[in-house]
Amino acid sequence: MEPGPPGSFGPAEPGPCLSGQRGADHAASASLQSAARTEPGGHSLAVAAVLPAGGCGERMGVPTPKQFCPILERPLISYTLQALERVYWIKDIVVAVTGENMEIMKSIIQKYQHKRISLVEAGVTRHRSIFSGLKALAEDQLNSKLSKPEVVIIHDAVRPFVEEDVLLKVVTAAKEHGAAGAIRPLVSTVISPSADGCLDHSLERARHRASEMPQAFLFDVIYEAYQQCTDYDLEFGTECLQLALKYCRTKAKLVEGSPDLWKVTYKRDLYAAESIIKEIISQEICVVMDSKEDNKHVGHLLEEVLKSELNVHFLDFKLVPPSQKMENLMQIKEFSKKVKERNILLYGLLISYPQDEQKLQESLRQGAIIIASLVKERNSGLIGQLLIA
Amino acid sequence: MEPGPPGSFGPAEPGPCLSGQRGADHAASASLQSAARTEPGGHSLAVAAVLPAGGCGERMGVPTPKQFCPILERPLISYTLQALERVYWIKDIVVAVTGENMEIMKSIIQKYQHKRISLVEAGVTRHRSIFSGLKALAEDQLNSKLSKPEVVIIHDAVRPFVEEDVLLKVVTAAKEHGAAGAIRPLVSTVISPSADGCLDHSLERARHRASEMPQAFLFDVIYEAYQQCTDYDLEFGTECLQLALKYCRTKAKLVEGSPDLWKVTYKRDLYAAESIIKEIISQEICVVMDSKEDNKHVGHLLEEVLKSELNVHFLDFKLVPPSQKMENLMQIKEFSKKVKERNILLYGLLISYPQDEQKLQESLRQGAIIIASLVKERNSGLIGQLLIA
Repeated sequence: MEPGPPGSFGPAEPGPCLSGQRGADHAASASLQSAARTEPGGHSLAVAAVLPAGGCGERMGVPTPKQFCPILERPLISYTLQALERVYWIKDIVVAVTGENMEIMKSIIQKYQHKRISLVEAGVTRHRSIFSGLKALAEDQLNSKLSKPEVVIIHDAVRPFVEEDVLLKVVTAAKEHGAAGAIRPLVSTVISPSADGCLDHSLERARHRASEMPQAFLFDVIYEAYQQCTDYDLEFGTECLQLALKYCRTKAKLVEGSPDLWKVTYKRDLYAAESIIKEIISQEICVVMDSKEDNKHVGHLLEEVLKSELNVHFLDFKLVPPSQKMENLMQIKEFSKKVKERNILLYGLLISYPQDEQKLQESLRQGAIIIASLVKERNSGLIGQLLIA
Repeated sequence: MEPGPPGSFGPAEPGPCLSGQRGADHAASASLQSAARTEPGGHSLAVAAVLPAGGCGERMGVPTPKQFCPILERPLISYTLQALERVYWIKDIVVAVTGENMEIMKSIIQKYQHKRISLVEAGVTRHRSIFSGLKALAEDQLNSKLSKPEVVIIHDAVRPFVEEDVLLKVVTAAKEHGAAGAIRPLVSTVISPSADGCLDHSLERARHRASEMPQAFLFDVIYEAYQQCTDYDLEFGTECLQLALKYCRTKAKLVEGSPDLWKVTYKRDLYAAESIIKEIISQEICVVMDSKEDNKHVGHLLEEVLKSELNVHFLDFKLVPPSQKMENLMQIKEFSKKVKERNILLYGLLISYPQDEQKLQESLRQGAIIIASLVKERNSGLIGQLLIA
């Protein structure tokens, strides 16, 4: 079973990749291009992104900072970078990491072949890290490959499921309003406690929103805001939109975001992210058949049964001649170890093919259940096993 | 592998069960009992719980209301009921469900053998459902097995991981303050939008909290509040603590809750809940060995290797004589189907036992990886398979 989609994100790349939203991306890109063409002078909008990734993940309850936690063996931040890289009109991505994680970050960039990434040293707070990223974009240093963008996106390293659609919306709104940010309805009512730990008042849920990421700003607006803001803001503030309002009188446009924008904060969020990634990956599988000429239609029968088990977008049956090498059980195991390095999970499945139509259907149904559960769970501990339907 | 813990929540009961927090529960119960004994008159505190479960789960993006969504084949609400039932000092649990889901709810209660549950018909809003539940507790109807409690807990059907510890805290605080509720730090900054969809102002995150569940009230306080409150409150309000404040001038005590109290709201939350339940269940496994007398120590070797793979609290090796029936591969398959009905997932594992020490270790390591991944994933599609290490 092949986890990676076709094209540049294929299985030759180490670690799983996401491709679920590509169709939507293309449509959105076209729309940005046409928006950009309406700019004065007809040139494209220069857009960069800043990703603060200096957090220590104390809420997660694990020693690894959450942006570096592995999901299906690949660090969380790598999924987020991939989501931003897919958007071709983001020219530069500046990631702020602490000195002690700099080498880890460099190795992630190399291993997953991330492009357009520049690293800067994170500050001790989120705002200071963002400010570092902005400075790197502002300064016209010699030898710097970065140049000042017109609009800058600020996103979190721990929101891996950001789509081009919402990035386009905040960038377009920032171009018009000076600032823009994604929002979501509140899940819980927000209350204000009194000093003695009792309820002072509760806020009307319908009149408030959760401020999420991504946000986007005219570069000059947010850079000005960071240059003017106080140490108190840099230490204790959390909201970039608020800085733009306070120091540049820029009222941010609020853009409704999707539930996928949520921030991986707790351990349960890692579980959820893993399941979502599995689900996206599982939409494409490859079944390699080894059946005799006259039994060829068993493949089509299996395909029919599989369709009811799996939400498969693409299903490729390759009817290959049985290889002598594959006949041996131990050789399947060895082969599966080899292809695992290319992120392909290989399992053997023996479907008995009785003449009795009812038994055949039962056998196919069993096979489909086994394939579906292997695809869903992506259990790398079971590669090379010969399963029997 | 046996998913259920020993005792009354064992595998004979259909569907998986949770037992992770039992130790803590006992300590907390003892503390409530001693607290209750200090009551005027020395009698125990009468506590009931109301569970509004009339929601339609529109945010989930699935047709089934979220409280009825299956997690490992068992409906979410059943886990929540189990969490409340484990707390022996909660005398009655009143669940408010819509008329159309009444039969489903009854069948869940029967299938999972829930006790102390009374059903009432839910209203069209959350507040109306809670009010229905309170009415059922207040009215001294003929033939009603319910009686008015001193303190009532209000909880959500979609927060399955509530622990006795926090229930005890809110009940104790409610007894003293009249009302109490669990709170959590805000994950996102909360903002207030202006009418034109722009940022009006953002709230200081440190000065606000998310109001979660459970909450508890002196019954007379919350019942009075519901009787007095307006139709507007019943239609558009969300916060019970606010009603107690507004109509009874009762300032609720706020109790810091654990991250586990989160509300299953989106599809990703179902994924997270499933992973958490799997993790709890996976802490107890049973390995049935079939090995020759002189190879007995392979069991202990495997146990050693398994310890590094699994966070197992209890591991029981039963060295049973090999049954003739089990020798046949097809019979393992048939047997696994039978025990699946009792919620036991059975897999076969053949560990080769070479004389070469290095090869033996490799074989054991492979076996441990396979066992660990089966336990972690609880893949019911693969039951009855003979896997080879």
